Amino acid sequence: MKVGDTHYRSIWRDAGAGQTKIIDQRWLPHEFRVVPLEGVEAFATAIRDMWVRGAPLIGATAAYGVAEAMAGDASDAGLDAACARLLETRPTAVNLSWALDRMRALLTPLPEADRAEVALREAAAVCDEDVEINRMIGVHGLEIIRRIAAGKPAGEPVRVLTHCNAGWLATVDWGTATSPIYHATEAGIPVHVFVDETRPRNQGALLTAWEMVGHGVSHDLIVDNAGGHLMQQGEVDVVITGTDRTAANGDVCNKIGTYLKALAAHDNGVPFYVALPSPTIDWTILDGVRDIPIEERDAEEVTHVQGKGPDGATGLVQISPDATPARNPAFDVTPARLVTGLITERGVAEASVEGLAALFPERAAA
Amino acid sequence: MKVGDTHYRSIWRDAGAGQTKIIDQRWLPHEFRVVPLEGVEAFATAIRDMWVRGAPLIGATAAYGVAEAMAGDASDAGLDAACARLLETRPTAVNLSWALDRMRALLTPLPEADRAEVALREAAAVCDEDVEINRMIGVHGLEIIRRIAAGKPAGEPVRVLTHCNAGWLATVDWGTATSPIYHATEAGIPVHVFVDETRPRNQGALLTAWEMVGHGVSHDLIVDNAGGHLMQQGEVDVVITGTDRTAANGDVCNKIGTYLKALAAHDNGVPFYVALPSPTIDWTILDGVRDIPIEERDAEEVTHVQGKGPDGATGLVQISPDATPARNPAFDVTPARLVTGLITERGVAEASVEGLAALFPERAAA
Repeated sequence: MKVGDTHYRSIWRDAGAGQTKIIDQRWLPHEFRVVPLEGVEAFATAIRDMWVRGAPLIGATAAYGVAEAMAGDASDAGLDAACARLLETRPTAVNLSWALDRMRALLTPLPEADRAEVALREAAAVCDEDVEINRMIGVHGLEIIRRIAAGKPAGEPVRVLTHCNAGWLATVDWGTATSPIYHATEAGIPVHVFVDETRPRNQGALLTAWEMVGHGVSHDLIVDNAGGHLMQQGEVDVVITGTDRTAANGDVCNKIGTYLKALAAHDNGVPFYVALPSPTIDWTILDGVRDIPIEERDAEEVTHVQGKGPDGATGLVQISPDATPARNPAFDVTPARLVTGLITERGVAEASVEGLAALFPERAAA
Repeated sequence: MKVGDTHYRSIWRDAGAGQTKIIDQRWLPHEFRVVPLEGVEAFATAIRDMWVRGAPLIGATAAYGVAEAMAGDASDAGLDAACARLLETRPTAVNLSWALDRMRALLTPLPEADRAEVALREAAAVCDEDVEINRMIGVHGLEIIRRIAAGKPAGEPVRVLTHCNAGWLATVDWGTATSPIYHATEAGIPVHVFVDETRPRNQGALLTAWEMVGHGVSHDLIVDNAGGHLMQQGEVDVVITGTDRTAANGDVCNKIGTYLKALAAHDNGVPFYVALPSPTIDWTILDGVRDIPIEERDAEEVTHVQGKGPDGATGLVQISPDATPARNPAFDVTPARLVTGLITERGVAEASVEGLAALFPERAAA
């Protein structure tokens, strides 16, 4: 999507430089930094330390990480080591293991001499497929927004609440939850977005708000606490979030706090949609609330907040007493009963075993 | 309560200095600053800019503010002007108008020459009554915690989640939601407190966590997004919050985000109690969700976060892009149907017209 007047993806191969490049998202929105990733360790660091984040982009980065490894050591041992190193970086996103499994399955039967080149082509294919999937999520999600707009007085914006960043920065392009918003904007439907700041890492304030500014989408930043009140007051027409992993029963694992917004939507009759590329579905899990593992991250993410200081430089402030410990579960699981629909690249599914099986019969049968 | 080894109230009269003093809470937890308030304008600023906050403490500060005014200009015009100036500082807390009405009703019939001295005595009485009310809230709330403890294996802590600061810093002493916690601790019942950071102003992280450290209460700071997940995972035994205004039907207005925690408690069968001094009840409002006015505060509270910088000084960082606007509703209303009980100085009431009327027949009849 757009950064100023230039079109960027969140990860790309710079063929001239022979490098894979990313936007180092830790410095947004205050600084736009592009960095090359060199060596598998750099890819692992970029994923673990969240230079890149978002389930689809994590998968794409891992795919390029395997390609990077093959350029160095294309042996079976090299492939195993790279996959193991990349897999251990983040525990929740299913796209990570999905991308690694895909690369390993493709590369294992090949002669070592071919692996580097094929891996690079496959990583590019992973990216292109992600872009197309997200475009289709937007096409289907647009219909939801169009339907809501049709029920409102002409010119009144459709008010969308979103949580975290399920934007183009979380994918290769378009985003998942944002794709319907961008498609609606391009279709001339007025949209206003309430952006949850999404503590502890503030991906909403830092990234989603930055995306909205970049594309001229009307929006308001709100604290994570405010969405329930806004829904209760009739100020939200629809909630659209992304997901890091969706269970086969339609339970949705997403950034911590999503569950609270789903409860508020349900309590106030506001439709609650989740936008997801099908690689995000974990067909092996039939009870998401019970069985999806939840990453517990560093307490410092809770006790400290990053932002732009008075001098313009990115800095960190500590909000709590020195002696106060913190808990930091990074995701929660929204039960399927609270989800109005799952917006996938094949259409909108009911959040249930049957709903997902109807759209993806070939996977559900597996 | 304790600051180090010294007992403090949150507001007091320093008779020797002839001054009313407060803890300037803007600098906690990193700096403990006591300041005198001189002139009505200082009292108004202290309330409006949240040097003091919390409904009971706002009421006590307003009472001393009237006393301060009477020492300068004890005429009817002086009394009117002082009450008007103090009333406009914060719109939500009912204690503010309650305290001002009480002072005005007492002082108006008196000769001007007596007003200053009587006002000072009355402000002290407001404070002493608040302390006694909060002590009794603790006595009644302790029974709830004791009952939960009795249902657990010996030695396992009762896990309490709280939102914002309804601690002794929000009252004159003891706190409302914290009073049962302090009483349980003194009774030797192990308690663990999950402290919501409570964006945008982080009263949980800044104040409640500081109180817990000061009294050696086991606790974890969490982001506001995390409570739903913890309840879903069975990690919370009871939620206790305060309130800024409770409607006569049991609807509870409290710091923004409280409603989301009530929804999560309800969804997971976790009891949700609200601790409140009876002056916080607005007997004139019969539908809190519809009729309690919600203060909308400055956007900068959302776009910026205050904390301790690397140099140890209190600083501010901006988390969102320069061009991003923000909405900042400061409170929300939790419908009575989500409230397990209201812990008052007279006992625990059902959150309903009947429940409150049974405990406060003399007010409900009014």
